[in-house]
Amino acid sequence: MTKIDDNLQKKINDKTKPLGSLGLLEKLAFQIGKIQQSVSPTLKNPVLVVFAGDHGIANEEVSAYPQEVTHQMVFNFINGGAAINVFCKQHNIDLKVVDSGVNFNFKPHEKIINNKIDFGTKNFLCDKAMNTDQYNDCFSKGESLVKKISLNGTNIIGFGEMGIGNTSSSSIIMSYLCKISIEKCVGKGTGIDDLKLQKKINILEKSKYFHGNLIDIKDIFSTFGGFEMVQMCGAMLQAYKHNMIILVDGFISSSVFLVASKINPNIIKNAIFCHQSDEKAHSLLLKYLGAESVMNLNLRLGEGTGCALAYPIIQSSVNFINDMASFNSAGVANK
Amino acid sequence: MTKIDDNLQKKINDKTKPLGSLGLLEKLAFQIGKIQQSVSPTLKNPVLVVFAGDHGIANEEVSAYPQEVTHQMVFNFINGGAAINVFCKQHNIDLKVVDSGVNFNFKPHEKIINNKIDFGTKNFLCDKAMNTDQYNDCFSKGESLVKKISLNGTNIIGFGEMGIGNTSSSSIIMSYLCKISIEKCVGKGTGIDDLKLQKKINILEKSKYFHGNLIDIKDIFSTFGGFEMVQMCGAMLQAYKHNMIILVDGFISSSVFLVASKINPNIIKNAIFCHQSDEKAHSLLLKYLGAESVMNLNLRLGEGTGCALAYPIIQSSVNFINDMASFNSAGVANK
Repeated sequence: MTKIDDNLQKKINDKTKPLGSLGLLEKLAFQIGKIQQSVSPTLKNPVLVVFAGDHGIANEEVSAYPQEVTHQMVFNFINGGAAINVFCKQHNIDLKVVDSGVNFNFKPHEKIINNKIDFGTKNFLCDKAMNTDQYNDCFSKGESLVKKISLNGTNIIGFGEMGIGNTSSSSIIMSYLCKISIEKCVGKGTGIDDLKLQKKINILEKSKYFHGNLIDIKDIFSTFGGFEMVQMCGAMLQAYKHNMIILVDGFISSSVFLVASKINPNIIKNAIFCHQSDEKAHSLLLKYLGAESVMNLNLRLGEGTGCALAYPIIQSSVNFINDMASFNSAGVANK
Repeated sequence: MTKIDDNLQKKINDKTKPLGSLGLLEKLAFQIGKIQQSVSPTLKNPVLVVFAGDHGIANEEVSAYPQEVTHQMVFNFINGGAAINVFCKQHNIDLKVVDSGVNFNFKPHEKIINNKIDFGTKNFLCDKAMNTDQYNDCFSKGESLVKKISLNGTNIIGFGEMGIGNTSSSSIIMSYLCKISIEKCVGKGTGIDDLKLQKKINILEKSKYFHGNLIDIKDIFSTFGGFEMVQMCGAMLQAYKHNMIILVDGFISSSVFLVASKINPNIIKNAIFCHQSDEKAHSLLLKYLGAESVMNLNLRLGEGTGCALAYPIIQSSVNFINDMASFNSAGVANK
């Protein structure tokens, strides 16, 4: 144990409660204290970024919803009507909405950050989703955004996504990177039936066959990823450079985190896995990452909703380490 | 389905999210709407009551901490230094501290509600914990307190406890009421080692042998309960009469709820089980009650901390049903 580890554990153990009795909150307080190298950690100006993008694979009817839902939901975000709006408002989290590559021509709008790469990716059943320039552009746009956010003193950031078809991207990327069969990496996404699920598996297996044995992270991610996913990956890696606490949402965000962790394994130190999704493959992916989730509310909504809902628990972990009395200060007998 | 069930489910399903994708939050919104018979439920003036009391059984060294910790923690509560203070402050929950029967002579204090029955219960290893008058007095004091709280418009109330030795009471009550062996009903409480755990099991088995085959709820609860537990039971039943949402904390509170549910089975409609405790028998008790917990943070602290930590999640369920846009109002295509 380093000095800070020691001091953090001592401070946590000295609080007026049975040893270890705050469970996961104690682990969170320890992790956040370690990230900030402080026994009095703080959460400053929390931000949640939702990246939106469209996917060529959506043409194969892998989702329960049509592609236009992506841009319709962007309007819902900027009008304050989506779940993520409600939960961010509840916890004073600053919500930022990014057009990473939606198949819609938005007029300039103060609430939409224009990071558009193109009007959706290409269909990876028979093409690469994006070319190298687009891929690099995604990374630099994701990085720039977080650099800008960091100027405001933000030290905790969550990431969400919106993109009809993006569970398909996540499943195939997970399959390649974790070397797990497609069947185990898929789920019902927004709610397809068993027949459509089988179709989704077939399409992803065909796609895997078409592109063959890819090894390189960049090859895999640019072949199957969405613009919103690659931008999120760049943003996560940049958030790590600024030593921010990184809130990981559900299945799609976790698959992006998986890519980020292959690029820089240290990023896991700063990550909090906010919830275990109801999307079937998510528990397997969390296991692969060695991650313990804060909650399991059977969510499968995306948008970063799990991050926003877990935020007060994370705040509680910081509050208890700062504000609870110690056995000594309260005059309570320790065992 | 009744009309309100129908209307609630329709309102939940019409929100801009895949069907069912808010998981447990949808169940909570439905339950709260049903309790309040409204598709626009609200949470008003949340209160958390911590009942404190001492236990004669603590003399048998069934706990990791000495009995004086009960009164020391009461001072900690009124000075704002305990975990429950920190979490209630975070969520604007009004915390009330009750001396139900602590073995300490508190001077009158504006922050201590004086419901003292006696200076601790008798040792149930060789005696009944309380007599019939004390038992009835506990119920009426618990009821009166909630009646008073209800005058303020409170429609959601959580209950916590403090009392060295009270996991022993809970375990033996659970064993009698659920007809499950003592061994399966005990756990490490505040953190005893394996040797002490075996001693705790032996003492509880001896106590069961001494008192023999009790059937009547009142006999069981007055023989083994604590003053803080019986007052909580009266308070829970009264909260149900006022149609409040009842937040159930961990193992001890759940064992009190078990008794309350034997007295009035309808109470379960208004109960939200806030977390699954790390205390081993709690998952078994929740299963017996047919209850699904909101969170599992491996807490084993009591004081009502699980209620306070789950509160923002419950608030989120109410917020989404009230504030999210519908497919129609947002112009988003439904499947």
